[in-house]
Amino acid sequence: MKIIHITKDQKLSLKRSIDAGTEEQRKIVREIIERVKKEGDQALYEYTKRFDGADLQSLHVSKEEISRAYEAVDKEFIDIVQEAAENIFHFHEKQKKESWFYFDEKGTMLGQKLTPVDAVGVYVPGGTAAYPSSVLMNIMPAKVAGVGRIVLVSPPDQNGSLPAEVLVAANEAGVSEIYKAGGAQAIAALAYGTETIEPVDKIVGPGNIFVALAKREVFGTVDIDMIAGPSEIVVLADETAVPHEVAADLLSQAEHDRLATSILVTPSIKLAKEVQKEVVAQLADLPRKDIAAASIEQFGAIYVTDSIEEAVGIVNQLAPEHLEVLTENPTGVLPKIKHAGAIFLGRYSSEPVGDYFAGPNHVLPTNGTARFSSPLNVDDFMKKSSIISYSEEAFRAHASKIAKFARYEGLEAHARAIEARLEKRGSDRNE
Amino acid sequence: MKIIHITKDQKLSLKRSIDAGTEEQRKIVREIIERVKKEGDQALYEYTKRFDGADLQSLHVSKEEISRAYEAVDKEFIDIVQEAAENIFHFHEKQKKESWFYFDEKGTMLGQKLTPVDAVGVYVPGGTAAYPSSVLMNIMPAKVAGVGRIVLVSPPDQNGSLPAEVLVAANEAGVSEIYKAGGAQAIAALAYGTETIEPVDKIVGPGNIFVALAKREVFGTVDIDMIAGPSEIVVLADETAVPHEVAADLLSQAEHDRLATSILVTPSIKLAKEVQKEVVAQLADLPRKDIAAASIEQFGAIYVTDSIEEAVGIVNQLAPEHLEVLTENPTGVLPKIKHAGAIFLGRYSSEPVGDYFAGPNHVLPTNGTARFSSPLNVDDFMKKSSIISYSEEAFRAHASKIAKFARYEGLEAHARAIEARLEKRGSDRNE
Repeated sequence: MKIIHITKDQKLSLKRSIDAGTEEQRKIVREIIERVKKEGDQALYEYTKRFDGADLQSLHVSKEEISRAYEAVDKEFIDIVQEAAENIFHFHEKQKKESWFYFDEKGTMLGQKLTPVDAVGVYVPGGTAAYPSSVLMNIMPAKVAGVGRIVLVSPPDQNGSLPAEVLVAANEAGVSEIYKAGGAQAIAALAYGTETIEPVDKIVGPGNIFVALAKREVFGTVDIDMIAGPSEIVVLADETAVPHEVAADLLSQAEHDRLATSILVTPSIKLAKEVQKEVVAQLADLPRKDIAAASIEQFGAIYVTDSIEEAVGIVNQLAPEHLEVLTENPTGVLPKIKHAGAIFLGRYSSEPVGDYFAGPNHVLPTNGTARFSSPLNVDDFMKKSSIISYSEEAFRAHASKIAKFARYEGLEAHARAIEARLEKRGSDRNE
Repeated sequence: MKIIHITKDQKLSLKRSIDAGTEEQRKIVREIIERVKKEGDQALYEYTKRFDGADLQSLHVSKEEISRAYEAVDKEFIDIVQEAAENIFHFHEKQKKESWFYFDEKGTMLGQKLTPVDAVGVYVPGGTAAYPSSVLMNIMPAKVAGVGRIVLVSPPDQNGSLPAEVLVAANEAGVSEIYKAGGAQAIAALAYGTETIEPVDKIVGPGNIFVALAKREVFGTVDIDMIAGPSEIVVLADETAVPHEVAADLLSQAEHDRLATSILVTPSIKLAKEVQKEVVAQLADLPRKDIAAASIEQFGAIYVTDSIEEAVGIVNQLAPEHLEVLTENPTGVLPKIKHAGAIFLGRYSSEPVGDYFAGPNHVLPTNGTARFSSPLNVDDFMKKSSIISYSEEAFRAHASKIAKFARYEGLEAHARAIEARLEKRGSDRNE
């Protein structure tokens, strides 16, 4: 892991170009979507056979399959999932907003009515990427928002099964329906509906390039979440940080993906050198050391700054997905942090505490997008309607100004709609 | 305007396919973006000459130009803009959320830190589409959110000027910088920056197909707002509504655009017939009657239902941009309305009241997207960072569960990052 002395004026960024897919991949995705639109379930069965090797009798996961999943997993796993689900529910409940109104002395009422989205689809990738923690993190904000129908889709294995851990986590999170379908075909089914799967209004959850491209294609018909990039951690530390803990945290991110980014920013050259040594030592016996080493080699870095203030400046430039603050007084640094998906304060807030357990969502903005986007949250599953209720008194007080503004913009029918309320006419029942 | 008797089970939708541009248009847009990235200001000057016919000396609008704009417009226009700006400010201020935290008995602190986006770009179309009300509506939520830098871009006329009304509205709304640049080149400049224009983090505001395609291209590098479709109004009315007022409101939407949609939903066949007659009568002498008549002819409709409940069901299916409720007790209907961008209650809340003056935003979800999206609002210009601060006590209480969950997901380095805090090692300064 290279140590780089950095000056105030250096421009840094975590932005990488997003994989927009090849022309060939986009064509395949468009074809799949068109076939699902036209042929419905039949297309899902055929694609599942072709891509996942499973000859399904039914797309729908039955209650019996969910019961069997509970028998297949450790009792301890269920306990931990339940405790994590409780923490996640609690944190997300605090986010929930209510409709609000205010009134003025003329009898005007203005406000926002908040309503949940009717139906949400959650995509869960297949194979080793089927993380039960992601199932909780994607379903529970929708559940807390009050979404009435939450539909999980995931590609089955060759035997036509979904992982027991995924079924248990989904059930604990409060899923409404689960279907065996993956790839672009599952996204198309969620957006346009088939005989078996009713369409939804919003689709969330990570997936491979075909899933990502399909989400982009159906965006507008339904809403989608962010397209996630590789994971990132930035550790902001001073000389009070413990080197082997810092190194362990950097590696926990690096093991995710060869493309993951792990960065230490510190004014302490001593810490920098010790962490550098610890990373090498700890890498040696990691099960996923090939992945972690590749990530550290290509994207890892230790930036040494002149001061902690400059280090904070670097953090705000990078706008990382995960930020750990391992300084003498972490809360003292917090007001200066402008851009980060999740901020972990102090040595007992190691990043995995947030990944699984604490309650805040682990679906976070990557790729520098923490400059303008947020962790997945309850607001993502609710929408606002403006409420405008003018009294006759308020209307008469302002009507001429409103009509004038309309005419300034050349919109005569707008002005006349206002003036229609001021006229006395034969068709006016209220006269 | 045709009257259609409708039954409960009929499926209706306002969704129309979104103009995704031709392959040729997309190619042009990508070329423009690449040139602006490479050549910066020089490309902006050349494109402005080619597309807008203006030979600019400077991209930046000076303080003197803004002063001259105030002299060029009516005093009354300034007064109305100021009063509207005050109302808009007031309504949007009520939306502003604060950072929040909570604590547990083990000393854990969890919460969300809310911060404004650093810099926002607002696109204002040229020519007759340069509405000062839109300038207010796009800038002010960002201002209220606390965005430090708000940059307006708009294509100049052949003399290299922007409309005085736009400059006055922008200044009243609190703009930071104004530049003369339009089309895809202006979007590229906002996303990637040039010598004169620093890049922003988010771009909002309507534009033609080239602007819309450019926004799609730069999405990810910066955030963008929704791509707006043609305007829509649905009037939900019973026999107490005043026919000539209903007709005037339908026409005020129809005059916007040949593609606009104006729909009346009512259980009253009497009202339906009277409104139908009034629409014809009022169309006759509208200045924009060609546009309004085309819109009414192609997309206008009067749906007659069996009951007011069924009419509400139709409204929720349509999920309109604007909804007027002209029934005996409009507030009584409100709880049943699930999907609408803005809801206008009662006869004195004619839709133009909200367009210009009342305070709620007129940038609203179109094309059925009110099922999952919201009016432009302060939250769109703020983002959340999760805060996780675990105490040693809380950490020790949960560490083994967190490590176990990590190992269930096959992520050993995650488990070790947790366990690193439990070890005693030589490099641990705290021992």
